[in-house]
Amino acid sequence: MCRWLAYSGSPVLLEELLYAPENSLVMQSKHAKLGATAVNGDGFGIGWYGSTSTPGLFLSTEPAWNDRNLRELSAQITVDRVFAHVRASTGGAVQRSNCHPFRHQNWLWMHNGLIAKFSLVRRELMLAIDPVLFPLVEGSTDSEIMFYLAVSFGLAQDPPAAVARMVEFVEDVGRRAGVEYPIQMTVATTDGSTTWAFRYSSRGKSRTLFHSTDVTTLRRQYPDNPALHDVDDDSRLIVSEPLGDLVGAWQEVPESTCVIVRPGVEEELVPFKP
Amino acid sequence: MCRWLAYSGSPVLLEELLYAPENSLVMQSKHAKLGATAVNGDGFGIGWYGSTSTPGLFLSTEPAWNDRNLRELSAQITVDRVFAHVRASTGGAVQRSNCHPFRHQNWLWMHNGLIAKFSLVRRELMLAIDPVLFPLVEGSTDSEIMFYLAVSFGLAQDPPAAVARMVEFVEDVGRRAGVEYPIQMTVATTDGSTTWAFRYSSRGKSRTLFHSTDVTTLRRQYPDNPALHDVDDDSRLIVSEPLGDLVGAWQEVPESTCVIVRPGVEEELVPFKP
Amino acid sequence: MCRWLAYSGSPVLLEELLYAPENSLVMQSKHAKLGATAVNGDGFGIGWYGSTSTPGLFLSTEPAWNDRNLRELSAQITVDRVFAHVRASTGGAVQRSNCHPFRHQNWLWMHNGLIAKFSLVRRELMLAIDPVLFPLVEGSTDSEIMFYLAVSFGLAQDPPAAVARMVEFVEDVGRRAGVEYPIQMTVATTDGSTTWAFRYSSRGKSRTLFHSTDVTTLRRQYPDNPALHDVDDDSRLIVSEPLGDLVGAWQEVPESTCVIVRPGVEEELVPFKP
Amino acid sequence: MCRWLAYSGSPVLLEELLYAPENSLVMQSKHAKLGATAVNGDGFGIGWYGSTSTPGLFLSTEPAWNDRNLRELSAQITVDRVFAHVRASTGGAVQRSNCHPFRHQNWLWMHNGLIAKFSLVRRELMLAIDPVLFPLVEGSTDSEIMFYLAVSFGLAQDPPAAVARMVEFVEDVGRRAGVEYPIQMTVATTDGSTTWAFRYSSRGKSRTLFHSTDVTTLRRQYPDNPALHDVDDDSRLIVSEPLGDLVGAWQEVPESTCVIVRPGVEEELVPFKP
Repeated sequence: MCRWLAYSGSPVLLEELLYAPENSLVMQSKHAKLGATAVNGDGFGIGWYGSTSTPGLFLSTEPAWNDRNLRELSAQITVDRVFAHVRASTGGAVQRSNCHPFRHQNWLWMHNGLIAKFSLVRRELMLAIDPVLFPLVEGSTDSEIMFYLAVSFGLAQDPPAAVARMVEFVEDVGRRAGVEYPIQMTVATTDGSTTWAFRYSSRGKSRTLFHSTDVTTLRRQYPDNPALHDVDDDSRLIVSEPLGDLVGAWQEVPESTCVIVRPGVEEELVPFKP
Repeated sequence: MCRWLAYSGSPVLLEELLYAPENSLVMQSKHAKLGATAVNGDGFGIGWYGSTSTPGLFLSTEPAWNDRNLRELSAQITVDRVFAHVRASTGGAVQRSNCHPFRHQNWLWMHNGLIAKFSLVRRELMLAIDPVLFPLVEGSTDSEIMFYLAVSFGLAQDPPAAVARMVEFVEDVGRRAGVEYPIQMTVATTDGSTTWAFRYSSRGKSRTLFHSTDVTTLRRQYPDNPALHDVDDDSRLIVSEPLGDLVGAWQEVPESTCVIVRPGVEEELVPFKP
Repeated sequence: MCRWLAYSGSPVLLEELLYAPENSLVMQSKHAKLGATAVNGDGFGIGWYGSTSTPGLFLSTEPAWNDRNLRELSAQITVDRVFAHVRASTGGAVQRSNCHPFRHQNWLWMHNGLIAKFSLVRRELMLAIDPVLFPLVEGSTDSEIMFYLAVSFGLAQDPPAAVARMVEFVEDVGRRAGVEYPIQMTVATTDGSTTWAFRYSSRGKSRTLFHSTDVTTLRRQYPDNPALHDVDDDSRLIVSEPLGDLVGAWQEVPESTCVIVRPGVEEELVPFKP
Repeated sequence: MCRWLAYSGSPVLLEELLYAPENSLVMQSKHAKLGATAVNGDGFGIGWYGSTSTPGLFLSTEPAWNDRNLRELSAQITVDRVFAHVRASTGGAVQRSNCHPFRHQNWLWMHNGLIAKFSLVRRELMLAIDPVLFPLVEGSTDSEIMFYLAVSFGLAQDPPAAVARMVEFVEDVGRRAGVEYPIQMTVATTDGSTTWAFRYSSRGKSRTLFHSTDVTTLRRQYPDNPALHDVDDDSRLIVSEPLGDLVGAWQEVPESTCVIVRPGVEEELVPFKP
């Protein structure tokens, strides 16, 4: 159910991230290796930061693997911060407003996983969204509700706390509705500068999540690999599954953990235990 | 902002209704004569009753005038009760779940018009939807909310009363939010047997609505018109605008009126004054 | 590279053919078991015969598995002769005019396989199409060219001979262009009454093809299976891969063979050796 | 039948060209003032030059006025050379491969108009395309054939001569097929540096075409208009119809004329009389 990728670092042509790797995200749209479903063909989306604080969105209901506009844009657009997502619907409509990433002002949000028995709890969850934000909900996914709940709970002030409060709320509403394991998620969110990624599930068996090893370490390990000399030391990827087989390049994010990637600082892993 | 057509009567090939008339609904998708907008190219939909009580839906985000699947289906499908709608979005997303007609069990619903300042009142309107029905809302239109409000208020038991209560509620919520004229609508709904069509607006200046003159009257008037001998006496059309120029064939539905079309009975016009 | 199904027999709701079977064609759009590719998500199409000799076409570029209009139509349309196809593009554009089945007058045509190095030979193949038919070519696939070549070579007069001449021509042009194995195909074509299905490849290693065992035989084998009592003795399926696991229900079509299914007559297998 | 815009000059956000003007191209997609048809809703396309010599293409079959991806990209992409086109089909399929601009290597091409009775002459025209280029034809429009004919006839060496030879050939083939006025066109083509625009029709009654007055002249005329101070002296627009009402800002391109826009040089109008 979905695969995603969050990149920040030196400017790179989008196709280097989305198409070039052996197990690229576009490849994963057709044949994901570690996902709950192999095919993630129910739409895709990219969100990137250009010259303004509001990120651009390119969202489509087509499978990523056969979308020629995605191919074209990837050959033209250079990014230093991008979110990309391929979707496998868990039943919701395949429509643009259900494609990730979601956006509010300068924030982006994308999700892999689900709220269990969503139709049972959808109304109560929506009622907890700040009434000012409520009219902005355009789609019918659990992921978008999670986003607007987090925004309502203070995402802009303290992202880990707001996401924790969202999870607690979803778990509380779910359990009152008789759901044993209410939430399953890997989530990434960014304000355009820092990225926060979360791996969590009520059951403690979360979808896979990996972050890239820092480049200086990799260069010591692979002194002859030219690709490692083109990216700067700050470049970081967080991904649903590794983009290739380079031993040591990817590290699994532990259960119940938040990864924080800030420019110019080593990434930080902190416990995330709502 | 949208044009629609509701037909009941002798079985007819869909293309006779949608393409053949001089000012057909497909023609109106590109060049409506009486609508608030000339172009109704933001999707379309048809709902028809086949062998089961649940009507079929064919909904698309493409303009009706260039959709080849609509052309194909129209040449194959024979209907005796059909709703058809071409959409001009008033800002909402162009996505399948925003296309009319909407369906719940054996009921269909379509709408031309709008709830004024919808984003101001959307939340309060949605909260009044029966919690059991709430998870069924898939799109982001005012029209779908109006439908589920009417269902919540007893559409299946007493359609004119349920629609009146929906209108009263929308007007009440709107006025409390400072909106002078909260609703503008022509609406059609059917249970698969009887059709109810409403023309109403808070301002008393409603979108156009017409119903066909009964065929026996027309035959007396045009004894030599062969087309009038192919349809049976019960066949009735309710339309946003006349499909042709035959004098006497179309009668405007008055303001604040509900037209009721029952099989085997002359249509009935009753005041609709919420 | 594509999966297809050809049905003729007693009237059946389309969803019984496309969705109900364990390994239905819609299931094969996401997870084909025997195809060259598991995912056949680059569009789909159905062609069926209603009340006129010209069959209807419903073609879409979306994956079959998430197309709600296909789901809706399948619940409404009853067919006694239908072609259905899910596409995996071998590089050509994902556009409606590249979806199978193709239609000319009362004929339908669908194909699984490819013309090797198509771009090398496309021009010479197109030149051999009857100039009267040439302007009807709308897409960019090898499959459509094969169809119009077969029509040009007398499909309406003698289908096996016309298809054989088409194959010979494609092989001749291909070999002159240095291609070792120019064609790979399972093809089905029908005039609305008889269906001809071909399994052939230049290499002698063709894509899979199966036909259903006649129902009377199956009933003797499974006297207690109620499903086998609902279909009449003439009902026949030809499929890229079996729709279920019922032992004895499916028989592989041998290499270089043409299956002919005529109403009221046992199916006939004849050698197809261009 | 289509409206287009060609811009070259100082870098400008795409939305300044496509959305901001009073009679912008996106506005023309719904309500063109001077076109043969008011609605140009059968797809659109943009082609622009980024960091490589191969231009990027963003093509879509949706109406430009409701395409949110176009809105998003327009807010992010800055261009100094762009072609943009909104399509009104004259019968051909609404599919991505029929959207303008067309691309070959570093060249772009877009067209408003038609080849009369195209189906009569399509085959003979296609046969004149260089066999090496033939497999690149993906769509079914007259416009794409015109492009590949021009490329075959030396577009890269001498654009006006190649386009003239293309027109002569189309007129010759058309007249031999009994067509009185074989071609109607405004065409723009560019190699990424120079733009050539042609206004021509066999009948001498061509679709409208305008070019912008040079900015220095306009500044003298409107010393207080701030917009005129943001663009550099070289910026040029060639458009199907004026984007606004500023008197003196637009000059009609005469019949049978080629406009040549080179960077750093005043535009040149030369007779185009095939």
